[in-house]
Amino acid sequence: MSRIVSSRADIAPFHVMEVLRDARLREASGHDVLHLEVGQPSTGAPPAALAALANAVESGSALGYTDAVGTAELRTAIASYESRRSGATVDPDAIAVTAGASAAFVLTFLAAFEPGARVGITRPGYPCYRQILSALGMVPIDVPVGSTQRMQPTPVLLDDAGPLDGLVVASPSNPTGSVLTPTELGDIAAWCDETDVRLIVDEIYHGITYHGPAASALRHPDVRPVVVGSFSKYFSMTGWRVGWLVAPRELIRPVELLAQNLFIAPSTIGQIAALAALDDTPALDAHVARYARNRAIVLDGLAAMRCERVAPADGAFYAWAEVSHLSSDSATLCQRWLTDLGVAATPGIDFDPVDGHRWIRLAFAGATPDVAAAMDRLVEDSR
Amino acid sequence: MSRIVSSRADIAPFHVMEVLRDARLREASGHDVLHLEVGQPSTGAPPAALAALANAVESGSALGYTDAVGTAELRTAIASYESRRSGATVDPDAIAVTAGASAAFVLTFLAAFEPGARVGITRPGYPCYRQILSALGMVPIDVPVGSTQRMQPTPVLLDDAGPLDGLVVASPSNPTGSVLTPTELGDIAAWCDETDVRLIVDEIYHGITYHGPAASALRHPDVRPVVVGSFSKYFSMTGWRVGWLVAPRELIRPVELLAQNLFIAPSTIGQIAALAALDDTPALDAHVARYARNRAIVLDGLAAMRCERVAPADGAFYAWAEVSHLSSDSATLCQRWLTDLGVAATPGIDFDPVDGHRWIRLAFAGATPDVAAAMDRLVEDSR
Repeated sequence: MSRIVSSRADIAPFHVMEVLRDARLREASGHDVLHLEVGQPSTGAPPAALAALANAVESGSALGYTDAVGTAELRTAIASYESRRSGATVDPDAIAVTAGASAAFVLTFLAAFEPGARVGITRPGYPCYRQILSALGMVPIDVPVGSTQRMQPTPVLLDDAGPLDGLVVASPSNPTGSVLTPTELGDIAAWCDETDVRLIVDEIYHGITYHGPAASALRHPDVRPVVVGSFSKYFSMTGWRVGWLVAPRELIRPVELLAQNLFIAPSTIGQIAALAALDDTPALDAHVARYARNRAIVLDGLAAMRCERVAPADGAFYAWAEVSHLSSDSATLCQRWLTDLGVAATPGIDFDPVDGHRWIRLAFAGATPDVAAAMDRLVEDSR
Repeated sequence: MSRIVSSRADIAPFHVMEVLRDARLREASGHDVLHLEVGQPSTGAPPAALAALANAVESGSALGYTDAVGTAELRTAIASYESRRSGATVDPDAIAVTAGASAAFVLTFLAAFEPGARVGITRPGYPCYRQILSALGMVPIDVPVGSTQRMQPTPVLLDDAGPLDGLVVASPSNPTGSVLTPTELGDIAAWCDETDVRLIVDEIYHGITYHGPAASALRHPDVRPVVVGSFSKYFSMTGWRVGWLVAPRELIRPVELLAQNLFIAPSTIGQIAALAALDDTPALDAHVARYARNRAIVLDGLAAMRCERVAPADGAFYAWAEVSHLSSDSATLCQRWLTDLGVAATPGIDFDPVDGHRWIRLAFAGATPDVAAAMDRLVEDSR
């Protein structure tokens, strides 16, 4: 006998996780691997977060469920952080703490869109937007972005995408690192306002920028955007799985109801650590200084590898580079790099199903000596 | 201007979370509340889990992402645990660690069912099954169960439900506490096999039973069931948000792909604590002994309150009792109990949208003196 498997599970793998698994298997068999594949800091949570955690454990707290959208303390602290960061006024009631930014996207898409809704996503872009939308019954619509638009959508490109119900924009972007200027973000917001399109802005890489802070969509409250944040990137707490969303008024209650039913509540221990992390900016800014050094090493290395097309890496910890002069298929190239050089990188096909075979993403959130050693091996191999 | 809100967010609240929020507000304003509403232990993670956590923090581990379906160590340990518990052979590859059992249901439903699929759920039953199915585009089909069937489905009841694509069964059940006998579970499994219905069994309350262990659907591998487990109940780690599912072969890869995209990975710190908790059975069995004492107090109290219809509380930490002789609307009754008596209980409407206004659920996972004091107040009030 057999039971069916849903067509909704017929989705592309998130290749970076597959590369990570292959790299772990290689390490488990005794080989060393230099990691340029995973978009996470090599550092752990900041000292204040670990101290808060130890304190919570010592106090004998049962660490049971919190409210579905997180503790009042953390929601208030995130609202203050978002207000400081964006220059807008953010109400704690608008904050929903989530099981990482991933859960924030699941909740946002379910709350904002009907089945069949057309939601624009950039190509290249973060692949999980596409897969989550598809799994939940929405239709992801590609908005191809190129270097002439600094790898971000513009009103002209959005007009070309046909009618949309929603639009997901990331600034800084994964995989390109490009950051929207305040003017560019304002133009996109105005376009969404005029066309009645729900704007969702992924701001999980805010705090990690190399030419001043990134503009926030929270400065455009009239457009009623959803903004998604995370403790995984700037706050260096990837595995703790704590993110958040800032919802416009009409979505606050729908998000809460969905969160109650789909997730019950985010991790309590993660929320305790996250609350303390919000104030530990010295440790976190030191990480950003390291990313800046790593970025210079990676960009120099890509130049030495004769990569002529590299996206503007103005934020996040990624370089998005064309490698068609090295291989006609970047997945094969990345597999060979892992096997021959012990360097794990991510093929572009994750981020751009059409042209990604000519591109790779290098993540430089690791330790500087590791990033330097990895780039030395890639440069040497490309000679 | 306005943006739409999805009809998928038009779902009933999970009332128990609303009661919890009201109770917290009451406590925040200086009043005491005795908690019989939330289905979670009042105790924290077992000592071994906290020790493992402290060790991980001291070791300076970055606590980054794990594999999407969890660490190899935890999957292997859960497979051993499930094998011991069920008497069946469970492969570590069949285990996906999830962000609580909630995420396991989201992944299972997406992997196993097409949009529009008809999935049977018991009434009364755990309300989130219904809400998750609806939010994800499936059609929950009520299977009304009564005391003549010990509050569990039977082949006759399932035949009456009309054509089904899937069936969710819980043993021990929330809210009724009823446990399927091996024969009853076998009959349901055989019915699913004959009718080609995907069987999903919620076994998150296994380990908390009062008349011997509960039978596991893993003893019926030919039926290709999905079994869901959790560290929140027997293991007393609610807020850590770690659960798992055991998938039949054809669903392993679909679940992994969906997990990569929808969740990235479960909490790393939660997985570390969970791995250690699996071996700390002395601490955990002491909790079950306490639940047994609490159960006797609650059942005695319900008898004193002249509740004549109480479901067989053979497992979990719930009593499901009819209270129509006390109030025509149990939601009003629970609100009055909270306001007048400082006792939080859950109205039955969460679990049975048709007849739940005549029922309540009392959760007795708290400290024995609190449970006793709460029941004293309810008994006194009912005189």
